[in-house]
Amino acid sequence: MESARPVLALDIGGTKLAAGVVDASGEVRSFVVAPTPDGPEAGLARLWELGREAVADSGVGWPAIAAVGIACGGPLDPRRGILVSPPHLPGWRNLPVVAMAEHVYGRPAALHNDATAAAAGEHRFGAGAGTRNLVYLTLSTGVGGGVVVENRLYDGAAGNGGELGHVTVDWRGRFCRSCGRRGCLEAYVSGTSIAERAREAAGESGDSQLLAGATAADVAAAAEAGDAVARRVWDETIEALACGLTSIVNLFEPELVVLGGGVTRAGDKLLAPVRERVRADAMAPAAEAARIVISPFGDRVGVVGAAAIGFERAEAA
Amino acid sequence: MESARPVLALDIGGTKLAAGVVDASGEVRSFVVAPTPDGPEAGLARLWELGREAVADSGVGWPAIAAVGIACGGPLDPRRGILVSPPHLPGWRNLPVVAMAEHVYGRPAALHNDATAAAAGEHRFGAGAGTRNLVYLTLSTGVGGGVVVENRLYDGAAGNGGELGHVTVDWRGRFCRSCGRRGCLEAYVSGTSIAERAREAAGESGDSQLLAGATAADVAAAAEAGDAVARRVWDETIEALACGLTSIVNLFEPELVVLGGGVTRAGDKLLAPVRERVRADAMAPAAEAARIVISPFGDRVGVVGAAAIGFERAEAA
Repeated sequence: MESARPVLALDIGGTKLAAGVVDASGEVRSFVVAPTPDGPEAGLARLWELGREAVADSGVGWPAIAAVGIACGGPLDPRRGILVSPPHLPGWRNLPVVAMAEHVYGRPAALHNDATAAAAGEHRFGAGAGTRNLVYLTLSTGVGGGVVVENRLYDGAAGNGGELGHVTVDWRGRFCRSCGRRGCLEAYVSGTSIAERAREAAGESGDSQLLAGATAADVAAAAEAGDAVARRVWDETIEALACGLTSIVNLFEPELVVLGGGVTRAGDKLLAPVRERVRADAMAPAAEAARIVISPFGDRVGVVGAAAIGFERAEAA
Repeated sequence: MESARPVLALDIGGTKLAAGVVDASGEVRSFVVAPTPDGPEAGLARLWELGREAVADSGVGWPAIAAVGIACGGPLDPRRGILVSPPHLPGWRNLPVVAMAEHVYGRPAALHNDATAAAAGEHRFGAGAGTRNLVYLTLSTGVGGGVVVENRLYDGAAGNGGELGHVTVDWRGRFCRSCGRRGCLEAYVSGTSIAERAREAAGESGDSQLLAGATAADVAAAAEAGDAVARRVWDETIEALACGLTSIVNLFEPELVVLGGGVTRAGDKLLAPVRERVRADAMAPAAEAARIVISPFGDRVGVVGAAAIGFERAEAA
């Protein structure tokens, strides 16, 4: 049980690498970010360097660091500590990053799916502290999630349980690039999908303020400003998210749903109508039990999640 | 720890009451069934009587009975042992059936949702013996389910977790009588919904063998015999079930999915195509991990589930 000492947290993203030192209360003592270089060799070299910078910046000192937690997009094998083939990291295949981190830093290390790690971070330090059952849903480039059941991270049979982005909202709906099915939640409410739907709608109508590259927040703002096309796109976003969350709430009956990722920058324009719909639509006891909030960690949710995985590793040591 | 002694299992249904004595190996030593009388007073009197008959028939003798397990449709409060307002039992409101059973039989008793209890039964005695994570889905008058996570029944925040019938397949689809939303799995694949869809399709086309009152098995058989309308209805049933199961498998990543209830009498006409679709559509690690089978218990799944709840109660005593 070494949980009183801080951990080094590493977050491997397709466009950004992040590292930080996080202490046992969840305070982020240092936080550094860099673009992800191409290819696994340059990428991992930069990641290990970033970890050293984070420790130097934190003022904590190497001897105090208990463990290293690593978060990355799946598919990965948390039990063996291997990145299998994350689609956002071309060329990063079958990499034993846990063994590599243990070699580089001389500390026990652990790896988990980034959205699953974020669920652990929310449960340990964030909006979910004190809850037994929570669901974390990230609305980002893709849509992913993690589930805490009875105070433990839910892994499923193969360590990838909780593919929350791939709950169906419309069985004959939009094609889902990540999984090849139709009508997944991700195909409507990821940042990529919202931008794509906005582009399509603006192209069809020719009468909209929406520009190419519009983000979820842009669509929400244009909708509020009275742009009818943006209104349609945003309303459908809310409808899809509420529909997927209602299924998730009916299935897991959590006390808390935490939303994170870039799309949540839309803030109350997203949260207020989604809360209202889920409360009206979910089965009564589940609807009453589940609060829905936006993650308090913003851009640091990945590092805080990785830290939670690091603390679990330190406590198991 | 009294698990070596048998339990009395009571299954309260909207049309039938059932009771049985089940021993620690899962063997059903006696099994009696009676129509459910109207109203809670006559209904409960008949239930207690049926329990006595089951014990008499079993040859086990009262002193050997360790506990009483009760299964019923929700909503109910398993922690307080109270039936809240099961829609299939008009007038049965806020009944403390656990306290009543303990008074009547002089044994510790416990209550759980019937589909959740069935999941416990499959995990303890049935298709799921030896698995850590399983999902049970009943396709009956309604669609319900239960989930075992890391060898424990998953309750959720309010004791009603796992409303598996209310995962969406089509957000603008058929109205769901049980929950008031659109496009729930239950609105397509319950016995009631299959019969209703068959009636509608036969009425629209006027060119079908399907008669009023056609069951799922009738529809499957007519489809196989070449009735085009039945084929359409059956294909949609398979598509909806596969879609809902894919969402469930993506979310829980179970080792095993057990299907039970009257609709599974269609057997391989249901199982084979659903297996194929879910395997093709679910995310890769989850799809590979999950086997899909039909419950081995047939009509006795309710009593076996109630028995599992009884054994959990006896072991906690």
